[in-house]
Amino acid sequence: MSSRDETLSIFALGGLNEVGKNMYCIQYSDDIIVIDCGNKFPDESLLGIDLIIPDVAFLEENKDNVKALIVTHGHEDHIGGIPYLLKKINIPVFATRFTLGLIELKLEEHKLLRETKLIEIDSDAKLTIGEFIVEFFKVNHSIPDCLGVLFRTSQGNIVHTGDFKFDLTPVNEQYSDIHKMARIGAEGVLLLLSESTNAERSGGTPSEKMVGEQVMEAFIKAEQKVILSTFASNINRVQQVVDAARRTNRKLVLLGRSMINVVEVAIERGYLHVPEGMLIEPNEINEFPPEQVAILCTGSQGEPLAALSRLSTGNFRGVEVLAGDTVILAAGPIPGNEKAVSKIVDNLFALGAHVIYGSGKGMHVSGHGYQEDLKLMLTLMKPKYFIPIHGEYRMLHQHRLLAESVGVAQGATFILKNGEVVDIEHSLARQTRRIHAGDTYVDGVGVGDVGDIVLRDRKQLSEDGMLVIVLTMSKGDKKLLSGPDTITRGFVYVRDSEELLNEMKRLIEKTLKDLKKSGKNQWSTVKQTIKKTISDFLYARTKRRPMVLPIIIEI
Amino acid sequence: MSSRDETLSIFALGGLNEVGKNMYCIQYSDDIIVIDCGNKFPDESLLGIDLIIPDVAFLEENKDNVKALIVTHGHEDHIGGIPYLLKKINIPVFATRFTLGLIELKLEEHKLLRETKLIEIDSDAKLTIGEFIVEFFKVNHSIPDCLGVLFRTSQGNIVHTGDFKFDLTPVNEQYSDIHKMARIGAEGVLLLLSESTNAERSGGTPSEKMVGEQVMEAFIKAEQKVILSTFASNINRVQQVVDAARRTNRKLVLLGRSMINVVEVAIERGYLHVPEGMLIEPNEINEFPPEQVAILCTGSQGEPLAALSRLSTGNFRGVEVLAGDTVILAAGPIPGNEKAVSKIVDNLFALGAHVIYGSGKGMHVSGHGYQEDLKLMLTLMKPKYFIPIHGEYRMLHQHRLLAESVGVAQGATFILKNGEVVDIEHSLARQTRRIHAGDTYVDGVGVGDVGDIVLRDRKQLSEDGMLVIVLTMSKGDKKLLSGPDTITRGFVYVRDSEELLNEMKRLIEKTLKDLKKSGKNQWSTVKQTIKKTISDFLYARTKRRPMVLPIIIEI
Repeated sequence: MSSRDETLSIFALGGLNEVGKNMYCIQYSDDIIVIDCGNKFPDESLLGIDLIIPDVAFLEENKDNVKALIVTHGHEDHIGGIPYLLKKINIPVFATRFTLGLIELKLEEHKLLRETKLIEIDSDAKLTIGEFIVEFFKVNHSIPDCLGVLFRTSQGNIVHTGDFKFDLTPVNEQYSDIHKMARIGAEGVLLLLSESTNAERSGGTPSEKMVGEQVMEAFIKAEQKVILSTFASNINRVQQVVDAARRTNRKLVLLGRSMINVVEVAIERGYLHVPEGMLIEPNEINEFPPEQVAILCTGSQGEPLAALSRLSTGNFRGVEVLAGDTVILAAGPIPGNEKAVSKIVDNLFALGAHVIYGSGKGMHVSGHGYQEDLKLMLTLMKPKYFIPIHGEYRMLHQHRLLAESVGVAQGATFILKNGEVVDIEHSLARQTRRIHAGDTYVDGVGVGDVGDIVLRDRKQLSEDGMLVIVLTMSKGDKKLLSGPDTITRGFVYVRDSEELLNEMKRLIEKTLKDLKKSGKNQWSTVKQTIKKTISDFLYARTKRRPMVLPIIIEI
Repeated sequence: MSSRDETLSIFALGGLNEVGKNMYCIQYSDDIIVIDCGNKFPDESLLGIDLIIPDVAFLEENKDNVKALIVTHGHEDHIGGIPYLLKKINIPVFATRFTLGLIELKLEEHKLLRETKLIEIDSDAKLTIGEFIVEFFKVNHSIPDCLGVLFRTSQGNIVHTGDFKFDLTPVNEQYSDIHKMARIGAEGVLLLLSESTNAERSGGTPSEKMVGEQVMEAFIKAEQKVILSTFASNINRVQQVVDAARRTNRKLVLLGRSMINVVEVAIERGYLHVPEGMLIEPNEINEFPPEQVAILCTGSQGEPLAALSRLSTGNFRGVEVLAGDTVILAAGPIPGNEKAVSKIVDNLFALGAHVIYGSGKGMHVSGHGYQEDLKLMLTLMKPKYFIPIHGEYRMLHQHRLLAESVGVAQGATFILKNGEVVDIEHSLARQTRRIHAGDTYVDGVGVGDVGDIVLRDRKQLSEDGMLVIVLTMSKGDKKLLSGPDTITRGFVYVRDSEELLNEMKRLIEKTLKDLKKSGKNQWSTVKQTIKKTISDFLYARTKRRPMVLPIIIEI
């Protein structure tokens, strides 16, 4: 152990002022441990982008100091960036048995499984990594096998909660180890990092068991097939669907690649208990009467290619939703997905299904603690300093107010941006410096090759399309030899716009003549003038601004 | 009056299976009356489109039969299409005093005010239009001066509710005339058209007065400036803000063009009562201590150019949000706007403001009736036939279930699509035929000139950008004279992709040679082959599909 003079630093490369791409770092005496490496899905302004991952340039520059990646749980916003990180820095990955199962699926896809050092841990593990002693505690969340992390340093103890709620009647023994948390708190916590997703919601999060009761009731009432859609990773909910299927003597069909993969991992590793013979293949459905069939599928977020969407439009080969079937959406729509989900509900009603959806039906509870859960964690840990993590600014802000309401001192909470560093020296925390952090866009196989210029062009193209003007001109006297030829896409439909395009051509010819007459006919001036003249002309006539691209061919 | 042998027909040109662009038609003995003519805002899949209005081709074809437009109230989804309709068919417009005020603003913008015949009515009006006798009844909604409509025909009475809720403690006497509705119901209603927006919500809609109480409390508590954002058209809410400002001795500043315009109309026409001297200009704010100032502004939906958004980023010239100010979002986000609104809340918190937002704060109630309101309307009207209108499919579906629960016979409800017609003959209704209906896109000044092909191109351009390949070739022997020249936009950033682009150029040259060798070098074949070869090459290398546009210049 180093002396108390070494600086202990905490910062995020993702997860602050956003929900997604979580990645937190703790550095002591040069050694860096990374906690989680998630991805985030782009909003509609990031045209064509598939995925956002944290920019890890800082870690690349400090490659030799990065000792380990600890993963708190297996959700995409905590593991989705791992393959991209490992391609740049090969470090050992520590996670629980179920979390590792999901990470392995991902590494296999990226052909990284063999060269990665994966180390299975459980909540009793005690690791020595560089200058840190690392311990863990069980937390409850909407996926099995979740951890909070304790870092012991000579400066003091640092706690990272992972994602959590307190569910006192958990499914499959996925309990929160409140006693261990109390012991850690009693020992003394210098700094707590706690997740803030539901810091805006008052009260405590309802138990997952509530969903089980509603699912059971719906299964008992259903006179035909039941189709239930939820997050594949919510194995505790899947267990309750399995239980309801058993109780009502139904066979169970899994639809959707991620549902099939995750359920397989969960059964194999002992996190999901399915009776022998219950699972059947889609093509076996018709061998059973409808009241003996249940379907568990992906697509609860309205994803157009997922199973539920295809079922709702009659496009899932071999499986049909019939009038009188019961369809349950056992997942709340993530903000931004509401419209896509509503469209599916519309289509299911039109097929004559009985659809159970929307809040207030008890078919979904959050995996993230509400205000009372967050206050309980703060009370257990009694931290001297507090960094709210995992949330948009307003969530971090509300979480600070909660912390102050249970005794964290004013001024002891740091609301950080990604890259902003809290340094602790002599057990005193200050926030003064920042390191590089940012978004890296994944587009197709390109990682980081799409930047602001490309996105700005896509935006202009998306709104008003484009117009290419080809001018074939003589090298010497700069006369128009042929053309102007024009091509438009996404601007106007050519057949309906001949007049406009002809008028434009005449304007181009006139502009070229004028330029020649005035002697201002260097190629660059010609290009710029044509571009501006035609842009202005089109805007005046159509109130649209297509991208105008003049191309001059010199002969 | 014609005999009972004439067919009475009902259909929608907009408003069914959607929330927006409401336009319903009733036709009897050739005479057509149109009810409302709204617009709708496009979702993000309609790239670059500004507005959607109903396709009115059917009305144009039957121009001479269209006798009148009756407007139930002044919301955009009921009046936003009027200028476009009037440019095609010049018909008289009937509406109440306040509604006309808003329509006039719109017609003025489109320079149509002078040639339009606007006829002011109130709920006591009794009109004879063609073969119809038309009467009205007051309904309560989130804008003043709303009407339901009764059409008397020799086939029977048809009722259109307009948008409504039952608010028994309304602001400014905007009451629902339940007694008149009861009389109409007692007389007998053959067919009811009733709005379905909140048919999924149980219970009854809370009173607008509840918002007033919350606003008053917040104004009293606020120690500095109060900034409140709501829909400009919700004059009843604006009245309550004015009342709270008066009670707390605050001057009131209006920000945002639509807020200023609508408030002016409302004051002028007697729907809003503002004490003398209360309204001040933005540049006068600093003449008063902060606890004597309130601001009422637009932008509650997160619109990036509206006042609230600009205030939240410090970009509203002359007006600042300071630490300790109170900001109230007195409007729920319309589905699709959640993220934009959240971003504003984040920014306001970062400025140190006290922000009151989100459901559960009592700062917003809906203007549309919940299930108990809808059941009350159905109970009052006791219709023989029922057409749920104004809603997505699932809302229409739930509304049918509500109708059946209060006694409308099974099979007497028609869930229609836009264009589907219910014909009534001998007081018997059947749905057999459809007329043309659809969406017309407004893009810039273009109305209807952007269609599926243009939108499909915009989508491809938006996701992966484009690549223009210019080949200058000799007419005779079809040899490449110069180039290939390439231009890309929205695909890759050229400076980072030189290698890829050079490789591509070599592939183009090789492809041209191969084509020449095999004699398959007609221009069209050359173009198609280059396009396909390069598209495949780029997809294999980047997993992106930019639009590839080969241009051949023959010399």
